[in-house]
Amino acid sequence: RSDMFSGPILEGTSMALQCAKSAGHWKVGRGMEEGFQGRRHEFTAECPSVLELGFETVRSLKVLSGAWVGFEHAGFQGQQYVLERGEYPSWDAWSGNTAYPAERLTSFRPVACANHRDSRLTIFEQENFLGRKGELSDDYPSLQAMGWDGNEVGSFHVHSGAWVCSQFPGYRGFQYVLECDHHSGDYKHFREWGSHAQTFQVQSIRRIQQ
Amino acid sequence: RSDMFSGPILEGTSMALQCAKSAGHWKVGRGMEEGFQGRRHEFTAECPSVLELGFETVRSLKVLSGAWVGFEHAGFQGQQYVLERGEYPSWDAWSGNTAYPAERLTSFRPVACANHRDSRLTIFEQENFLGRKGELSDDYPSLQAMGWDGNEVGSFHVHSGAWVCSQFPGYRGFQYVLECDHHSGDYKHFREWGSHAQTFQVQSIRRIQQ
Repeated sequence: RSDMFSGPILEGTSMALQCAKSAGHWKVGRGMEEGFQGRRHEFTAECPSVLELGFETVRSLKVLSGAWVGFEHAGFQGQQYVLERGEYPSWDAWSGNTAYPAERLTSFRPVACANHRDSRLTIFEQENFLGRKGELSDDYPSLQAMGWDGNEVGSFHVHSGAWVCSQFPGYRGFQYVLECDHHSGDYKHFREWGSHAQTFQVQSIRRIQQ
Repeated sequence: RSDMFSGPILEGTSMALQCAKSAGHWKVGRGMEEGFQGRRHEFTAECPSVLELGFETVRSLKVLSGAWVGFEHAGFQGQQYVLERGEYPSWDAWSGNTAYPAERLTSFRPVACANHRDSRLTIFEQENFLGRKGELSDDYPSLQAMGWDGNEVGSFHVHSGAWVCSQFPGYRGFQYVLECDHHSGDYKHFREWGSHAQTFQVQSIRRIQQ
């Protein structure tokens, strides 16, 4: 371990997510600060609708601490985007779903139970926790490469931590956030994965980092 | 460990990547097989140009074994897309870069040295292996959350395995493949990361899974 890990990894700062509405699009180059223009708002707790703050949408954001999930629509509905610490200068930085680009973030909430070091998840072949199962405690960019049969997961039980699973390998496509402190960690059918879930297709899974 | 890990994780199959040119776009739903229409070709070694096989482009693909990297242009040029085992029914499944969607894959090669269990990488603050450094052997969806200062990496040295780093947190944006058996594992400036690299911006890094 090098000097970059000498301090505690998760410092006890308050959760903060900084947003800025930007008129223009980000250009490639060193001038990436260009993306963080416009009106700014700092969030330290969940926000069911940025519209109430006078934002039409959020175009760029910085996660200063904690892990967050952003939603396409108000009230934590629609597509889900996991937002870990770092800079997202334009919509393409937080959207990983190119087929149905929402291009908007309307609500946010922190992911309270993310724990990169102690995360345990059981995946089941069928809905309602039936069929073959697999126990996960690491990141899997390809479930099939690890021996999982097929491109679907029927249901999940989160024992600890927070996870994000994705439709395609390498964490691409629709994202579904799975947390131990929501639904008692039980996600027994794709209808419980989020309002945007339409299939059981899941090909990659990883822990959320806080 | 459950029964899903009872066999060897990497079975000794030949590397194979199956491609199909598709006329239409994939539709959401259970009918995802729709994506794998058209002419088919199975690759078991690098392919510098699918044009020579009579494909205009590749619209959907299945990675049957091994890990691969697909390139936007012929001759392994342009945007890079890591392709691990699984199904990619349309361009949005393999593209994670929504700002500059290439929408095409023209050349492919296997990632020979991927080793999920023994991968070590040193990242440096500045080009030419200068400045602060960090030793990595795990996946980091957010380098900043792990204590790395800023949104850039100046240079890399790959000790073992193969890695993919990404412009934005959560493995979004431009991807750069880093391998221990290319350039002797040395990537001393963004110009050596790939023909599409234009900045030092790197916010997430992970091992490639085989």
